[in-house]
Amino acid sequence: MKATEALQAHTKYLWFNTKNRRDYVRITDEVAQFCQESGIQEGFILVSAMHITAGVYVNDWENGLIHDIDEWLEKIAPVNPGYQHHKTGEDNGDAHLKRILINHQVMIPVTEGKLDLGPWEQIFYAEFDGQRKKRVILKALGI
Amino acid sequence: MKATEALQAHTKYLWFNTKNRRDYVRITDEVAQFCQESGIQEGFILVSAMHITAGVYVNDWENGLIHDIDEWLEKIAPVNPGYQHHKTGEDNGDAHLKRILINHQVMIPVTEGKLDLGPWEQIFYAEFDGQRKKRVILKALGI
Amino acid sequence: MKATEALQAHTKYLWFNTKNRRDYVRITDEVAQFCQESGIQEGFILVSAMHITAGVYVNDWENGLIHDIDEWLEKIAPVNPGYQHHKTGEDNGDAHLKRILINHQVMIPVTEGKLDLGPWEQIFYAEFDGQRKKRVILKALGI
Repeated sequence: MKATEALQAHTKYLWFNTKNRRDYVRITDEVAQFCQESGIQEGFILVSAMHITAGVYVNDWENGLIHDIDEWLEKIAPVNPGYQHHKTGEDNGDAHLKRILINHQVMIPVTEGKLDLGPWEQIFYAEFDGQRKKRVILKALGI
Repeated sequence: MKATEALQAHTKYLWFNTKNRRDYVRITDEVAQFCQESGIQEGFILVSAMHITAGVYVNDWENGLIHDIDEWLEKIAPVNPGYQHHKTGEDNGDAHLKRILINHQVMIPVTEGKLDLGPWEQIFYAEFDGQRKKRVILKALGI
Repeated sequence: MKATEALQAHTKYLWFNTKNRRDYVRITDEVAQFCQESGIQEGFILVSAMHITAGVYVNDWENGLIHDIDEWLEKIAPVNPGYQHHKTGEDNGDAHLKRILINHQVMIPVTEGKLDLGPWEQIFYAEFDGQRKKRVILKALGI
């Protein structure tokens, strides 16, 4: 597929306020809707967590695996009162590290007007210090 | 370098079917060839694994290091029959976690018609549950 | 926000030569300056470490947390004489793994001519094998 046209850029913000401190929210449908709204046919959509204790990742939509991911993140980057960061009064050192581990953004390719994801790829917002309002940017660049 | 022209978008899919369950395949040449085919002079190429038990990364082309990376991934995200994900009948929970750890995509800058990589940067496809057909998307956006 | 105009591409390289082997250098101001120089109003800026023993990440500008991140990286991907990579004469196997863990690049969205970062998001260059000249590419694509 090849196309040569003028560029379009579109921006939208998603807001989250999870009930739990840690949560994993599927946002594939919201990103697909944004793709449709933008009207771009070929390009990229950036999906990026704007708060530094949250992430975005692409993996399976299966509750057992989501449980495994959460347990694994907690094992590798555990809640721990001993973080130096906590001397500022914060208690979320682990959440900053979990964001690094899972990464905070993905680029979604758009082909023929649709998210060009593999058959099992689903986009997730990963909250590590929730119970307050936090934001994700969606930014589309393309034709 | 500055350029102001109409945008081009190009898409290609690479297929893999590795002999081993875990494998690390250098794909710099394939991405460079795609860059040339696309004809873009300035822009980005997304290289993204479309299956959720594989990744893409940029690091050294040195067999000792590739061995170290594999050993390290297995240490941090080990094969383990205890994953909840396995209640679905799957046995690849570790592969999902390894993909998160190594990340599943990179953006390659294109400058003056070539991949703008550092002297030792090489692009790799990382397979964590192979021995079947799997896909990587290459998507170029630029001038 | 929607815009339909001709594309612009801009490229710049930042050089680093850190005093310490491991160091974390805030580069938000340098990226913001590049954004202004480029004149793009809507688009993306790629910030990517071109050496395979360094990374780029977005997180908090707080010294305690930077200490925690360094300690955590060293715990998960430690300096270790036993890496196979060292048979080449190198001694920086840990630095290659730390780059994988923290990731080596970010895409920064640009909206209305400015870096569209969350209130606490700061861009960092993470050096894991310093005391020599190393490079980061900044590449802007947008309107």
